[in-house]
Amino acid sequence: MGRRLVLTTFGESHGKCVGAVLDGCPAGLKLEEGDIQGMLDQRRPGQSAISTQRAEGDKVEILSGVFRGSTTGAPIAMIIWNRDQRSTDYEELKTKLRPGHSDYPAMIKYKGHNDYRGGGRFSGRLTATLVMGGAIARKLTHSYVSQIGKVAMGKRFTEKMIPDIYGNDVRCPDPEAAALMRAAILGARRDMDSLGGMIESVTTGLPVGLGEPVFGSLESDISSGVFSIPSVKGVEFGSGFAGSESTGSQNNDTRTNNAGGILGGISIGMPLTLRVAFKPASSIPREQPTVDIKSGKDAVLSVKGRHDPCVVPRAPPVVDSVVALVLADHALLGGFIGPVL
Amino acid sequence: MGRRLVLTTFGESHGKCVGAVLDGCPAGLKLEEGDIQGMLDQRRPGQSAISTQRAEGDKVEILSGVFRGSTTGAPIAMIIWNRDQRSTDYEELKTKLRPGHSDYPAMIKYKGHNDYRGGGRFSGRLTATLVMGGAIARKLTHSYVSQIGKVAMGKRFTEKMIPDIYGNDVRCPDPEAAALMRAAILGARRDMDSLGGMIESVTTGLPVGLGEPVFGSLESDISSGVFSIPSVKGVEFGSGFAGSESTGSQNNDTRTNNAGGILGGISIGMPLTLRVAFKPASSIPREQPTVDIKSGKDAVLSVKGRHDPCVVPRAPPVVDSVVALVLADHALLGGFIGPVL
Amino acid sequence: MGRRLVLTTFGESHGKCVGAVLDGCPAGLKLEEGDIQGMLDQRRPGQSAISTQRAEGDKVEILSGVFRGSTTGAPIAMIIWNRDQRSTDYEELKTKLRPGHSDYPAMIKYKGHNDYRGGGRFSGRLTATLVMGGAIARKLTHSYVSQIGKVAMGKRFTEKMIPDIYGNDVRCPDPEAAALMRAAILGARRDMDSLGGMIESVTTGLPVGLGEPVFGSLESDISSGVFSIPSVKGVEFGSGFAGSESTGSQNNDTRTNNAGGILGGISIGMPLTLRVAFKPASSIPREQPTVDIKSGKDAVLSVKGRHDPCVVPRAPPVVDSVVALVLADHALLGGFIGPVL
Amino acid sequence: MGRRLVLTTFGESHGKCVGAVLDGCPAGLKLEEGDIQGMLDQRRPGQSAISTQRAEGDKVEILSGVFRGSTTGAPIAMIIWNRDQRSTDYEELKTKLRPGHSDYPAMIKYKGHNDYRGGGRFSGRLTATLVMGGAIARKLTHSYVSQIGKVAMGKRFTEKMIPDIYGNDVRCPDPEAAALMRAAILGARRDMDSLGGMIESVTTGLPVGLGEPVFGSLESDISSGVFSIPSVKGVEFGSGFAGSESTGSQNNDTRTNNAGGILGGISIGMPLTLRVAFKPASSIPREQPTVDIKSGKDAVLSVKGRHDPCVVPRAPPVVDSVVALVLADHALLGGFIGPVL
Repeated sequence: MGRRLVLTTFGESHGKCVGAVLDGCPAGLKLEEGDIQGMLDQRRPGQSAISTQRAEGDKVEILSGVFRGSTTGAPIAMIIWNRDQRSTDYEELKTKLRPGHSDYPAMIKYKGHNDYRGGGRFSGRLTATLVMGGAIARKLTHSYVSQIGKVAMGKRFTEKMIPDIYGNDVRCPDPEAAALMRAAILGARRDMDSLGGMIESVTTGLPVGLGEPVFGSLESDISSGVFSIPSVKGVEFGSGFAGSESTGSQNNDTRTNNAGGILGGISIGMPLTLRVAFKPASSIPREQPTVDIKSGKDAVLSVKGRHDPCVVPRAPPVVDSVVALVLADHALLGGFIGPVL
Repeated sequence: MGRRLVLTTFGESHGKCVGAVLDGCPAGLKLEEGDIQGMLDQRRPGQSAISTQRAEGDKVEILSGVFRGSTTGAPIAMIIWNRDQRSTDYEELKTKLRPGHSDYPAMIKYKGHNDYRGGGRFSGRLTATLVMGGAIARKLTHSYVSQIGKVAMGKRFTEKMIPDIYGNDVRCPDPEAAALMRAAILGARRDMDSLGGMIESVTTGLPVGLGEPVFGSLESDISSGVFSIPSVKGVEFGSGFAGSESTGSQNNDTRTNNAGGILGGISIGMPLTLRVAFKPASSIPREQPTVDIKSGKDAVLSVKGRHDPCVVPRAPPVVDSVVALVLADHALLGGFIGPVL
Repeated sequence: MGRRLVLTTFGESHGKCVGAVLDGCPAGLKLEEGDIQGMLDQRRPGQSAISTQRAEGDKVEILSGVFRGSTTGAPIAMIIWNRDQRSTDYEELKTKLRPGHSDYPAMIKYKGHNDYRGGGRFSGRLTATLVMGGAIARKLTHSYVSQIGKVAMGKRFTEKMIPDIYGNDVRCPDPEAAALMRAAILGARRDMDSLGGMIESVTTGLPVGLGEPVFGSLESDISSGVFSIPSVKGVEFGSGFAGSESTGSQNNDTRTNNAGGILGGISIGMPLTLRVAFKPASSIPREQPTVDIKSGKDAVLSVKGRHDPCVVPRAPPVVDSVVALVLADHALLGGFIGPVL
Repeated sequence: MGRRLVLTTFGESHGKCVGAVLDGCPAGLKLEEGDIQGMLDQRRPGQSAISTQRAEGDKVEILSGVFRGSTTGAPIAMIIWNRDQRSTDYEELKTKLRPGHSDYPAMIKYKGHNDYRGGGRFSGRLTATLVMGGAIARKLTHSYVSQIGKVAMGKRFTEKMIPDIYGNDVRCPDPEAAALMRAAILGARRDMDSLGGMIESVTTGLPVGLGEPVFGSLESDISSGVFSIPSVKGVEFGSGFAGSESTGSQNNDTRTNNAGGILGGISIGMPLTLRVAFKPASSIPREQPTVDIKSGKDAVLSVKGRHDPCVVPRAPPVVDSVVALVLADHALLGGFIGPVL
């Protein structure tokens, strides 16, 4: 991921570790493990009643590219050692493929050699590596939960609400909506089911001129990054899908920022806004019909392991990181390092 | 665009030509100018009452990479010479920036050196180069108009409707909806305004295993390509935004293909489905407030030139091409050339 | 070729044209066809008794990316239409493969679909596309012929000799050596044979800090570009092969620039020097043993067509261009646009 | 490094570790730490009287991408933890730049933020990461020392000599030459100086058709990789520099493999041969003139640390790995997995 600032990730949910290498970062930026840890803590599970009971710990270690508190210009390798795995939870999945999960295409693609435990490389745990990569970039992006299942935020987001995003475990800056969302998630847990939702993301303070026309448009690169997050099935910028129902004379109105801060693929100096749709997690304890690939017969599967009934509250720092990385990459390409990195 | 099959495009709306170079295409595929011309004719303007009156002609010429009717393995360069331009229509735009258009960020980014006539590199005319690139790939993808403004298709799309897509100038396989859409477009033209809309795209016959987890997911690469099309502001796969309101037990249902044929970023052998939201074109004849950058004063602009009141009916072959190119690229990467290319 | 400044080339020796697209060039640089033409004229055949009698003409046309004499920031497409081809000269090569030429691996790789006329994509004619690409970069690089066959330059090159490089048709700034080289080439022509030789290249005025350690070293990128020139079989920087016979205390001497201006893959502010070995051209009129792939029998081949007995005198602008492009790419990556582009 | 099989390396000589991530490796290849360790042991110092006395240990650990002894298709991360460093040896280098070393351009490029200890990212220790990356590829490549200082191998290399390469600590398969080379290295150590030399590399068993014309030629990609090895200053294929002195009729002779197994950038099925020139290591204990950047005054430097008087005997597995990686990358691109990977 990235042209000038290239992020490579590795690791599996139930392997030794997950990690990231960020290459192309300029020398002389301040970076400490604590900076990355702070962002990782915002996404880690085991934080509250609405998320998985796994206590991942997730202590990041910087392996290279930082010397005496500053980036050196060399590749920055970062790692989190895996702990508290219960791989035995996954032995049933060796032959029973989880519906709605990557188990089936992965088995075919990798001819049965993939690490199936916990989804392996496909696990949501890998989103920690995106957060490691994004931690280096300036904090211009603020993402929050705007909808869980059918419960949407009631208020329009304003910059004043930024401090409230992490004020509750749903990561929704509207406290009343957050309470309803929380109730919905607990309901899904009781039902042994899961819920999806929506993340909205706002980036302010961007210069005019980030992005390239056609193949390097900001929308192309951000959407490409955002669809690297497991469970994402839709992305829109500015007025997005709703805007396609309006007329040109309505939608051109620049004060309402229907363009989401991007015209012709390039930043226009207004806030960059996007919305990201997450499907409900496919790993649910409720019994579902599946196929046992060993016997070839129909089977029933209840996915064990300690899964989130809703992954969306953990996603804001991940979306933050992806957007920040793409913007930092374009800032380096376009010579705008100051304001972005 | 592309990892193994790399598309480079060039040209401007009011320059000498628009063109494309496709590198990485295997040797021995049949390719003639007529094949590409057929796809280009589906997107070209001047076809009916609902589109621009420019008669672009758009005759493609293959410059290299094809010898005696077959691809040679060398880069395939293709070109369309521009004709029937009226650059004088654009002199006003030298100082008056079109609202909702790339004029402003392009002027800043390129320090005033960009070719502003007709949007230059940002013009919708460049979508012809995407079509040139996609023509080499197999015709597994079928895109159609599913909504214009607020008028949506009434029927659910089935494969039987494929032959009807190009049965009307709206490119909607539901003839009754097409008539209403057509009326809406003519209404927008009368109002000197424009309309947006939605394209849906279905690809059948794909093998299991196309795509890569994380950064090379099919969703990442297709969305990146689709957001390279001017006016696109949203993309969703399968149940997309609507699916984020459902529960895991509902959304996991594989018969309904809520996954849009993709799990973990990889094809699962079911139809690959996506929806693309187009904003209404920003170039409208109606008077709009703008700024004259020469005088620095507020101004009023009526965009001249012969523009489409709705670009969406011209977009199906463009979406087809982008999806086909991404799939062909992944087929080459994964060794699935037979079924896709 | 290139990370930030990407050159794509296309065309065949006996197809319609040869061309190049240069993407990533900053806006606002002065560029006219005459600038490129001047460099092309330095490599074009038909100039003197020692080169091929083909009168290629080679008029370059800029198709895009330049508006009113300046680059726009959009991809710059450039083309030369082919003329004066005699494709009939090549019909024998359909079945008789030229020894020492790419005919055999190309036939296998492309399963017989490659354009075999004149080498197609493998032709030395494609070096014109490298020159088109390099013309945009600043003229800091000066390449010259230092050896033809066994005749080497007698003097040590100094900057004062730069104006003499194009003072003779051998492109050797030592006039006495040039006369001997010329005689050697004419001798090879009489013998229906060909000669190889050596190009030396010096770049002055570079800032300190161009290049990246390890995979993006200046040596890596320049050698990769130089080996894209047909017939190149060796590259060395600074003291190169000879330096490997010295000791550290000798070779460390910075005044003698044994490092060729590069340490750790990065420019050090001293002249960047390299030497490039060209094999003798494989297409010779003299009869050579070969195989007729149709009959499977041994055969004798005298390569027709009007070939250079020595391509080395045409190579200096090509080496100039490759070095200039790599340096311009690294200048854009490292933020050194001023001195290099 | 690589198009389809991408190697990313990280780490510093005196940081926590050095490591590599190899992405794009097919699933189902056997890989164990022992396989990589075997190749690493061939390059590690502390083996004999002619190399550094550091006992690096160099135990490789696979962190991801391998499950139950097979590659999974996910990125393979590998790491070696650094031990036995004496960073205090390097404090003098903070202000006194080593002549002939990357210290100066690195200080300028990274504005003083680079890890100067032991060369940091520029250290020869990083060649261990190239070996980790190359270990996955099949052992078709055999590299050996053909010259140390002025002592060259007396015999012509044949395949029968392959088992003798690692028969002595110089890695030269000609035992008599090896004895002389060893004496030369011990002489250089006594003189507190260093020696350069030459590596030759032969790869057999390649299919016809690996490589791409122009920018993806085998020569381009191999030379680019080989120049990523510290101290390399020259590369030639087949008859190389010597061949540039011959005539076409001599050089075309296919039996002598003057082409080094490559024509038009593509493998021809004959052995792929190259020669690599290494300069003498710039870190020598002998006193050398330098500049103290703190005082700005001339100074004298004797480089401490335990350095090899000649790095060339450690380079054969590194050259092996680079060549093997490039060939494996092209094999994946061209669909030749069987014979190469």
